Parts: sequence; structure tokens; C-alpha cells
Amino acid sequence: MQNENLKPNEIGIFALGGLGEIGKNMYCVEYANELIIIDSGILFPDDNLMGIDYVIPDYTYLIDNQVKIKGLFITHGHEDHIGGIPFLLKQVKIPMIYANGLALGIIKKKMEEYPELKVKYHEFTENETVRFDKMEVNFFRTNHSIPDSFGIAIDTPQGTIVHTGDFKFDFTPTSNDANYAKMAWIGDKGVLCLLSDSTNAELDDFTESEKEVSATIHDLFKSIAGRVIIATFSSNVHRIQQIVEASIQTNRKIAVFGRSMEKTIEVGSALGYIHAPDGTFLYSRNMTGISRKNLTILCTGSQGEPMAALSRIASGTHKQIALIPGDTIILSSSPIPGNQESVNKTINLLYKNGASVITKSPFADVHASGHGGKNELKLMLKLMKPKYFMPIHGEYRMLKTHAALAIDCGVHANNVYVLDNGQILALSKDSGRMAGKVPTSDVYVDGLAIGEIGSQVIKDRRELSKDGLLSVIMTINQDRHEVICTPTIISRGFIFMKDNEQMIKTLQTLALDVTDHYLEIGKKININGIKNDLVKSLGKYIFEKTNREPMITPVIMVL
Amino acid sequence: MQNENLKPNEIGIFALGGLGEIGKNMYCVEYANELIIIDSGILFPDDNLMGIDYVIPDYTYLIDNQVKIKGLFITHGHEDHIGGIPFLLKQVKIPMIYANGLALGIIKKKMEEYPELKVKYHEFTENETVRFDKMEVNFFRTNHSIPDSFGIAIDTPQGTIVHTGDFKFDFTPTSNDANYAKMAWIGDKGVLCLLSDSTNAELDDFTESEKEVSATIHDLFKSIAGRVIIATFSSNVHRIQQIVEASIQTNRKIAVFGRSMEKTIEVGSALGYIHAPDGTFLYSRNMTGISRKNLTILCTGSQGEPMAALSRIASGTHKQIALIPGDTIILSSSPIPGNQESVNKTINLLYKNGASVITKSPFADVHASGHGGKNELKLMLKLMKPKYFMPIHGEYRMLKTHAALAIDCGVHANNVYVLDNGQILALSKDSGRMAGKVPTSDVYVDGLAIGEIGSQVIKDRRELSKDGLLSVIMTINQDRHEVICTPTIISRGFIFMKDNEQMIKTLQTLALDVTDHYLEIGKKININGIKNDLVKSLGKYIFEKTNREPMITPVIMVL
Repeated sequence: MQNENLKPNEIGIFALGGLGEIGKNMYCVEYANELIIIDSGILFPDDNLMGIDYVIPDYTYLIDNQVKIKGLFITHGHEDHIGGIPFLLKQVKIPMIYANGLALGIIKKKMEEYPELKVKYHEFTENETVRFDKMEVNFFRTNHSIPDSFGIAIDTPQGTIVHTGDFKFDFTPTSNDANYAKMAWIGDKGVLCLLSDSTNAELDDFTESEKEVSATIHDLFKSIAGRVIIATFSSNVHRIQQIVEASIQTNRKIAVFGRSMEKTIEVGSALGYIHAPDGTFLYSRNMTGISRKNLTILCTGSQGEPMAALSRIASGTHKQIALIPGDTIILSSSPIPGNQESVNKTINLLYKNGASVITKSPFADVHASGHGGKNELKLMLKLMKPKYFMPIHGEYRMLKTHAALAIDCGVHANNVYVLDNGQILALSKDSGRMAGKVPTSDVYVDGLAIGEIGSQVIKDRRELSKDGLLSVIMTINQDRHEVICTPTIISRGFIFMKDNEQMIKTLQTLALDVTDHYLEIGKKININGIKNDLVKSLGKYIFEKTNREPMITPVIMVL
Repeated sequence: MQNENLKPNEIGIFALGGLGEIGKNMYCVEYANELIIIDSGILFPDDNLMGIDYVIPDYTYLIDNQVKIKGLFITHGHEDHIGGIPFLLKQVKIPMIYANGLALGIIKKKMEEYPELKVKYHEFTENETVRFDKMEVNFFRTNHSIPDSFGIAIDTPQGTIVHTGDFKFDFTPTSNDANYAKMAWIGDKGVLCLLSDSTNAELDDFTESEKEVSATIHDLFKSIAGRVIIATFSSNVHRIQQIVEASIQTNRKIAVFGRSMEKTIEVGSALGYIHAPDGTFLYSRNMTGISRKNLTILCTGSQGEPMAALSRIASGTHKQIALIPGDTIILSSSPIPGNQESVNKTINLLYKNGASVITKSPFADVHASGHGGKNELKLMLKLMKPKYFMPIHGEYRMLKTHAALAIDCGVHANNVYVLDNGQILALSKDSGRMAGKVPTSDVYVDGLAIGEIGSQVIKDRRELSKDGLLSVIMTINQDRHEVICTPTIISRGFIFMKDNEQMIKTLQTLALDVTDHYLEIGKKININGIKNDLVKSLGKYIFEKTNREPMITPVIMVL
């Protein structure tokens, strides 16, 4: 039962996802025969992963150690922390999902789409202790860009492991305060190891407060004479509430566009996170009777996603909203790394079509990040006073920067561990060491299938995207050892066939030449030999002629 | 002869490239029967243009008006200003290319690869006036991130048109000063219209001076105890000279890696822009005898280009350089929009492999942009005092921001023109108006071919990259109206065939069903009908089963 990498008195700590990357967060704490999972997220892939919808962790270790699993604890309701739950449940039996408030609401809504999956929930409260045989779990409220975000403290016989979740410190938040007292109390009792959010470790000082964002949005709504079109992350319930309040105060009705935004408003209103008097939202989308200065259009697309409402508005392809002179667009967001280009494209289109655009800048606090900067990370370190430190949630440079901050704040340099996914940190009350690895890899989710997309398929897609494909199809009569008709050449993404008749003819001749000496009567026809030679010979000709390397797929039909 | 969009006394000004984008700069000034071209650049495409090497402007207008062309004037030697020259010369006869110093050197070097193209050069000097029948061209030196950058002033009977080229104002540059006196003189004589660089219009205040960069690099080289690995734009001759000087002062030899860097050092040294005593460069690449603190490794890859030296060093795949403890990497550059992600990846890898990394930050002036910020743009406006203003070089938001600056600086709002590529601004000494459009579009260069790649091919590549391709090949006997053998299904980038035998069988059955009723004896076989139905029917089944939409290509062989 005991993890063979660990000594009997050691706690094992490792990530199945979330180290060296932003996304697919999943951390495990293991002691004796008990295993606790924190979060189960997805990662949204970059353009290199052609056509892949999400990336999730490899759950092999959990499948193999299912019997140890005590529960899945959720820090908050963002997709990079909960998006993997359906995929996890398909493969691993989870005795209980522990979550609070909005996170639980979002998970339940999500699981409605998977009625075949059995799942048990427990809504934890901040004052509760969840007890297992060897481990106990406590919670502390933090500030983040979604309500009901929590840090998790796991007491073990060897000491306490604290996982911050995603956090910042907002001294003037729009909803609950962080629970400073509880953090200080946990720190005072003694923390063996702190796992802390590194996303904004490179940001100097503090993040802006949501209160400043509220004030800015209110001032803008007041000063703008025409329609306000405002886009934000659909999960940012605080921001939506700020927009609701600013709209009410400036006599604006709110029309909502974008499915995920509608969904958040539905869940957020049902659970009491979004308060708006009846008639604030224009559910009918009938905006005709309302003058421009009384209208807020709240929409998705703050990341420049090509199919989202804002991109369609910008490009003039939105069915219900056309830009009109005097429109002001507010991007209440910042581009996630990788989305900078698509956001720029959207902004350029909006400008071009005559709109004014306001983005986050030193002069317009229209957005605040959900992740703490250097001074917030230091405050957490000072509250928790950990003996060991392990930066989590972030690319490698962020983890390294956070590690340096921890050393600045008094953690001994030998006690700071910057790990990769899968690497096991083994801790006892008076020792720390690296203790091997559990299997980890990226598993691709594409369409309805999990993990079915191998790296070969991705490699093929990448190759196809570069120079396209050329197929040569030959039909051979097996009795007469003869090619029956002219080889068929088809191509996609390479060149336009009808513009290149001469090249087609040459390729056909080449294909016949190659095949010829394989067709000697009396010998068995070597199909693979023909195929290999076709790829080589046609490929060489095409490269010489065009400097391109389409994927060449030969098909030999033997009749 | 006279452009039909223009009245006899009007000057026509338009861009074939460079408006609403960063790249493929090409501006035309036309008066009566004379046409002057300024710059001929390429644009490096983003990931959306699958496999395309460069984008160039459509030269149709120049082909149609070849007889008017007086010459091509080059502002400076960057690829987005000169990279299009070989493609232009293939299609358009250019009587003379006017360029100065380093730009001319780089163009000549480039044209060695195209011995079949006839080209005539004239090296202009700053004090020279190039005279045509109706127009005269004068030059003024500017500061930019490459030596020998010039602005161009075209005198016409209606007034003077000034094109700034790319510029900044550096009061303490590493090479020549900008020619403030000549700019002031041109402005004082009177400028009808100013075309000015908008790339950094969103940057507040001034760009850093190269002198500060020199000092920072020198201090870093002095304080770093191990090897310095420094990457920068290979065209940045100033920066290379700064690195040479810092290396000499700190007793470092310089090993150079990356073909384009070697080429710049060759051209730059030959033309006297790079000065280094013999023995400064380790041409042999033999670094074994030299201690770490005496070594500078100067390399390409500051944009995270996957095949460049720095990326290979970071990933441990460089043949000659392996990272060793104590290495410090300096990125003396800033990411060009679109490259942020690949730069981040490289930095993460470098950190992970134990190197220290220094990038441009408020605490480390290791790079200065070549484009002026708001106050520099205002200074240019004040020196030139134009009646009309047209922002150039930049995405739409930058052009708009620059337009607002011009109005702030006293240009009448009605006299500011933010144009698209192709739109003609028609000016006389006392009137300005929009006057139609010349044809413009993006022409793709891929492999050896220009313009052969149509948008359909790009669309195909994009589609292929998403879900791959599935081909169904059927052989029909035309006498018996029968399918001869089981349909062949091949796929690439969709799913792995051997893992999905059941699906293949179903697709084969579906294909036979679809074809069946087209094979009635006595009727002509409708091949296109079969193909359309195959795409529809197989596509529907695949989408239901997998939620994916591979490109489906049916091939029907009729024997």
C-alpha cells in the first residue's frame, strides 16, 4: 500500500499538472495509505496542438492507486481547476468531491451534461475540518477573480501542508475578505510546507484592488454618452456584478451576449452572487426601444476568441449588434499569454469600424488580475512561515522567481523545491528530499475522445498545415502485373491542381516509372516497396520544382 | 497617362503595404506622369498563414503603370522595407534603386542570389537632390535600430511630401546624429503632407537612448563571472558594435552563432560599421582554450525562433554549445508582437536548464526600440509643421493614436487621413480628398513560387491542421455499373486507422450504400453526385461518432 518511493514517515507531494505551465492544475498529497487530490483542471492548448480542444493530465497513478484516494478538494471554480472532473470521473472512482459555494454550483451544472457519471458532493464550510484516518483538511478563504476561492491546509502526523489555491490579497474587495486570521493561525501552529500560486510572481508590488476597478468602471459608464459594450471573462462574477451596479447607477439596461456569459449570470444569480433588480437584464434582447446612453452590452470575447460575441461585433458579422458611431468598447480583462495577437486583431477591427476602445492601462483601471504580485506572495509567506516551500501554478520562470522570493522571506535555500510535474517531494517533520517520479504526460482531448489522439496524429496535422498533402492512387492488375489506368493525383493544401497540369503529368509519368520494375512477371508484387519509392521519387521531384514538402500518401489498389 | 482618380493638379499618395499592419512597407507618391516608390518590404506572416514564408503586396498597379515609375527609394535596410525587392524586380521594371550605405550593402548582398535580375543602383548622399521632371527628392538622416536610416522629402509643384521612414530621436546615439537642422529647414520651407512612422505611437514619452543600453551591457558584462550568451536582432548593427565594445573592455572573446548574425558581421565589418581588432571574433569556434569569464557568445534567436541558435542552446540540441552552471543569457531585444509565446518558451527552458536570464525590464536597459514614442512623434510633427498628416507603419490602433497626436500638435482634424492600403489621398496645395483606390491584396510567397498560393490552399491547410483528412477511394466498372472492390479509406491527422477498424468498416458500408443508387443500369453515372453524397454522408457519421470534422476527399476511379 505504501508508496514505494516514500519511507513510512514521509509525506509525498506531487503535481499531475500545473508545474511549468498555466493550467491543468492537479496536486496530490499522500501519506501512508491515504491520498488527497487538490483540483482537477484542464489546459487550453496553444496553436501548436492542432485542433486539440483541451489537455488533461495522465491519470494513471490515480487509477493504479484508486483505493488510497480519500477525496478531491476543489479550491475554486475556474476551468483550469475543475474542467478535468468529467474526464477524471470516467477513469477514476472518487469517493467524494469537496467544494464550496459557486465552485460547487458550477461543477454541478457541468456534470448535468454527464448523467452517466456517478458523483458524490460535500459542500465544505470554512469552519469545518474534514477528517480522514491520518490526515485532516482545513480551509481558509482567499481573494481571487471568482467568489468562493479557498486555500487548503492538510494536517498530517508529520506536519501541515498548505496549498494556497489561486489567490491575491485585496484589502478592498467587492465581496468577502480573505481570512487573514485563519491564515495567521495556521501559520502560527506551524506549517511544514507551503505550496503557493506563482502566476504573477514576476509582477512587482501588489495587484490593483477591485474597488478601484469598480470606481473606474462607474466613472466610465457615467462619462460615456453612447452605448457601452463591455467584454470580460465570463467566469468573473465580481466583475459582472460591478458592471451591473455601474449600469444601474447610470440608468443603463444590460443586454447579454455569449453563451458562457449567459450561463454565469444564470448560475451566479441563482446562487446569489449576482444581484440585479428585475428588468435590469434585457432577456428578450430587444434593444430597439432603449436610447443609446441607457444601454450596456455585456459580452464574451475579451480574449479575441474568433467565434465569441465581441469578435463578431468587431468584424461586423454579429447577427444582432452592429457598431454605430459613439459606441465605446471596454475590455475589462487582460490578454492571457498566447492571446495577445487575437486581442490586438479585435481591437484593430473595432477602431477601424469607428468605435472607441478602452483597455487596461495605467490611466484606466478597468481590470485587476486575480493573482497576487510579489508583495502579496511575500505576505502569504510571512503569514504561513513554512519550513519547506514549493512554488506551484506557473511557467518555470515564474516558479523560479517565486522560489527566490521565498528565500528572501527566510525559507532556507535548501528547503525550496522547484519541481516538474510528477516529481515527488518527500517530507517528514525534519527532512526533505526528492523521491522519484510518478508517471505524467499530456493527454489530449479532441472532440468526444480522451487520449485517443496520439502524438503521431498531431505531427501529421502539423505537417499537413505546412505544405498540405498529395495523394497518388494507382490501380494494378495482379494477374497481368500491369498498371490499369493513369495514376490519379489529388492534393489538398499544396497547389491548385488545375493550375499545374504539367506538373501532374510529370508526376504521373514518374509514378509509372517507379512502379514499372516492381511488376516483373513471376515475382510477388512488393506493395510496400512501390509505396516507399513513390514517396521518395515524387517527393524529390516536388521539392526540386517547388521547394515544398507536402505529405505524400500513395494508395495502391490491387484488382 | 494621368491617374484617372486624380485631377491634373493633384498629388496621389497611397500605400501598397504598411497601413494597418507591421510590415511589407511600400508607399507611392504620384504626380502627373511621374511615380516614386518608397521602400519595398515583406511581412512575416503569423501562424494563421499555414506554411507561408512571406507576404508581399500585390504589384498590379505598378505593372500597369510601369512607364511612370521614376525609381525606388529605400529608407533603410530592414527586411520589412527591402525584402520585397527581388519579387518586385521579377514583375516590374525599376529604372533605379536609390539607397545609402548599409542599406545598399545589404540589398547588393541579397541580390547576389538573383543573378538573373538586372538592377541599377544609385547611392544617394544626404546633401544630394535627385531631380525628375516634376518631382525632386531630398534626404535627411534619422535615428533607428540600423545605421543609415533616412527620411525622404519629395518636392512637387503643389508642395512637399515628407516620408519619415522608421525613426526615433536618440540624443546620445552610438553612431550618427539625426539631422535636426535639415528637418527644421524642410519644415521651415513648408510641408504639405507628413507621412510618419506610427509603430510606437502607443508608447508614452521617449524611447531609451542607445547610450544607456551601452552602459547597461557594459556593466553586466563586467559583473557576470561566467560566460555571457547574448542574443539580439541580427540586423541591429549598433547593438552588435556595443557588444563588441563591452567584450573588448571586459577581456572577452566573441564566438558568433547563427547564419544571419555571421552575415551581418561580415557585411557590417566590410562596410566599416563594425570595428573590432583582429582576434576579437573566434572564427574557428574553438572555445576550448578560453576561460568562461573571457567568453561572449553572440547568437541569433532573440525572437524564440525554433531553429535559431538560442532555442537550440535552451533545448540542449545545439551541436557546439551546452549550457553550464554560471551561464548568463541576455536577451538584448524585445518580442515582436506574435513572438511573445515562443520567447517565453525559450526563457522557461533556459531557466529550467540552470541558466540565469536577463531580459529588458525597468531595471535592465538591455534593449532600446528603434521606433519613437509619443514625444518623439510630436517632435517630428513640430519640426515638419505639415498642413496634412497621414500616419504610416502600424496597426490600425497605432495609426489612430498617431492621428490624435497630430491633432494635438496643431494639424487640423479635417486634414488628418488614416487610410487603408490602396486608398488614394489626393492633395493639391490647397485641397485634400480621398480619391478612390488602387488594387491591393496580400500575395503569398511559399517555397519558390510567388502568388501561386491562393487563399483556398491556405484555407485547406487550416482545415487540415484542425481535424486532418479522410479519403475514400472507390473503383467503379463503367460497363457493369458496379463497384469493383471494397472502398479504400485512408486518413492522415484524423484518427489512427488501425485503432478504429470498426469505424472503417462502417464507413465502407456507408460509401457503398451512397453509391448504390447512382449505379442504375442504363443511366449515366453521376460522378459528382456520388462525391457530394459521400462527403455529406461520411461527414455526418464521423461528426456524430467523434465530434470532429476532417476534410473528406472522395476519389472515384472509373475503369
